[in-house]
Amino acid sequence: MNVTMALDLGGTKVEAALVREDGSVVAGTRSRAATGEAAAADRGAAEQAIEQVVRHCMAAPEWAGVTAAGIGSAGPVDLGAGSIAPINLPSLKGFAIADFTAAVSGLERVVLRLDGTCIALAESWLGAARGVRNALVMVVSTGVGGGVVSDGRLVAGSGGNAGHIGQVVVASVEGSAHDATVEGIASGPSTVRWARGRGWDGSSGEDLARDYAAGVPVAVAAVRRSARAVGLGLVNAATLLDLDVAVIGGGFSFAAADYPELVAAAVREYAVNAYAANLPVVRAELGGDAPLIGAAALVHRADLLS
Amino acid sequence: MNVTMALDLGGTKVEAALVREDGSVVAGTRSRAATGEAAAADRGAAEQAIEQVVRHCMAAPEWAGVTAAGIGSAGPVDLGAGSIAPINLPSLKGFAIADFTAAVSGLERVVLRLDGTCIALAESWLGAARGVRNALVMVVSTGVGGGVVSDGRLVAGSGGNAGHIGQVVVASVEGSAHDATVEGIASGPSTVRWARGRGWDGSSGEDLARDYAAGVPVAVAAVRRSARAVGLGLVNAATLLDLDVAVIGGGFSFAAADYPELVAAAVREYAVNAYAANLPVVRAELGGDAPLIGAAALVHRADLLS
Repeated sequence: MNVTMALDLGGTKVEAALVREDGSVVAGTRSRAATGEAAAADRGAAEQAIEQVVRHCMAAPEWAGVTAAGIGSAGPVDLGAGSIAPINLPSLKGFAIADFTAAVSGLERVVLRLDGTCIALAESWLGAARGVRNALVMVVSTGVGGGVVSDGRLVAGSGGNAGHIGQVVVASVEGSAHDATVEGIASGPSTVRWARGRGWDGSSGEDLARDYAAGVPVAVAAVRRSARAVGLGLVNAATLLDLDVAVIGGGFSFAAADYPELVAAAVREYAVNAYAANLPVVRAELGGDAPLIGAAALVHRADLLS
Repeated sequence: MNVTMALDLGGTKVEAALVREDGSVVAGTRSRAATGEAAAADRGAAEQAIEQVVRHCMAAPEWAGVTAAGIGSAGPVDLGAGSIAPINLPSLKGFAIADFTAAVSGLERVVLRLDGTCIALAESWLGAARGVRNALVMVVSTGVGGGVVSDGRLVAGSGGNAGHIGQVVVASVEGSAHDATVEGIASGPSTVRWARGRGWDGSSGEDLARDYAAGVPVAVAAVRRSARAVGLGLVNAATLLDLDVAVIGGGFSFAAADYPELVAAAVREYAVNAYAANLPVVRAELGGDAPLIGAAALVHRADLLS
């Protein structure tokens, strides 16, 4: 069975594994290395972390059959230049990650995409958007990101940055732009901050989840506010793209057992057109494996790329 | 040279023509028939109007070489069912316009799409988005609509309704959803109403254009407000789709000589990500011919469809 190397680069860690053409991870090949502050300040440290997880894959017996790699990276990216400029890793601004990975691994074919779009690709291949031609897959966590599948293909956009639903502006534009984005309102940290500003004494998304389940009013209001902002972002995406489904993953989406239903209710309330108002909203199915599965899909399911 | 029949169905008129594969209209084949109130109330009247413009095409000597037709229709549409449900023509709810046109004309191949997407296709083929892989083309007029080209292909979406940027929600969600849409704020009638509510005594978009040019403060404020709402809609589209360009047409976009610049300024102000903030905003190039050229492109440029 065909095997590819998958690599996922984020602000806190870089992870790699060998992934078969059925989406399964080859046992023992998955590893991670911290990125974080050291890598953010020093490109050498970041390169070392990437090289470490790549070499772990190369040590596996299955490496002999690997001919290509897929990379999902924190954005923004510049697919034309083959480079990245992750906001949380300033040292990697302009870093030619595809060339670097090719040089370390000796692989000739390395496909790069934004991490949010890799997650969308994974859910399209093997998850909640399986076989769906028009989907927005989003992650609600410390940040909010996503990816778009339109007419059966993963949308890259001009430079590869399509899918950034976290920076869609949804609320009043009084005040700063960031306060009015989906991420600025709906992310875990934003929601915790909002609740604390109203006298709530918890400090994490887990605390909010507990108090939401217990019916603590400010926690309920905070989580509903998050879901409403996500719903408003989806109103715009569904109106503009006529989606079949929205798929929601990410740790903070578990702040409420009924988070997808809360989001769907906001979509129904604010969408003008029936085709958008009726958008089904479901949970992601692949969880923490999605970034690597999606990176592998850049090779295994190239038919889903534009 | 290949010739196709192009048909454009809207709330006030239906229009048809024969269009060559270079986008030129065959002289004498273009005609229109009113739809409006009579057709809105009576499907028979609407069918008669469509049949009239189709038969006018069929009377041309060039008809002998025509084997296919493209139709752009006011939405919503349901491409899966081949039917339409134009908001302004209730009599045509569920009307199988492609089958009807095939039956009248004897043509076997009839391709249907939303009118806004046909305009986007026309500008992609021969206008301001020529050769551009990621574009949003919008029309700012009595209503606000548009179409999306992503990764070199016209986006249809689940049922064919992608492109409805007029129903994207951009402002505060207090109050009704419609008040907060791009169309609810930025359209010609909405802008005239807003200015009149502030003591302005004009009554049309043309009046606003005259007073904007003369520097009448309330007219200037009204037109800027329209452009800002359009810009906010584009912030979301550009953030989500990573566009190369936004193209703006429609009569009300001429309310200000610098309307595209006003829109671009709003995009720069409100977009969070640089790739979205730097979106070029340009005027459409094809004007009133765009709907028919785009309908013809459904046949002549099938390579641009998904």
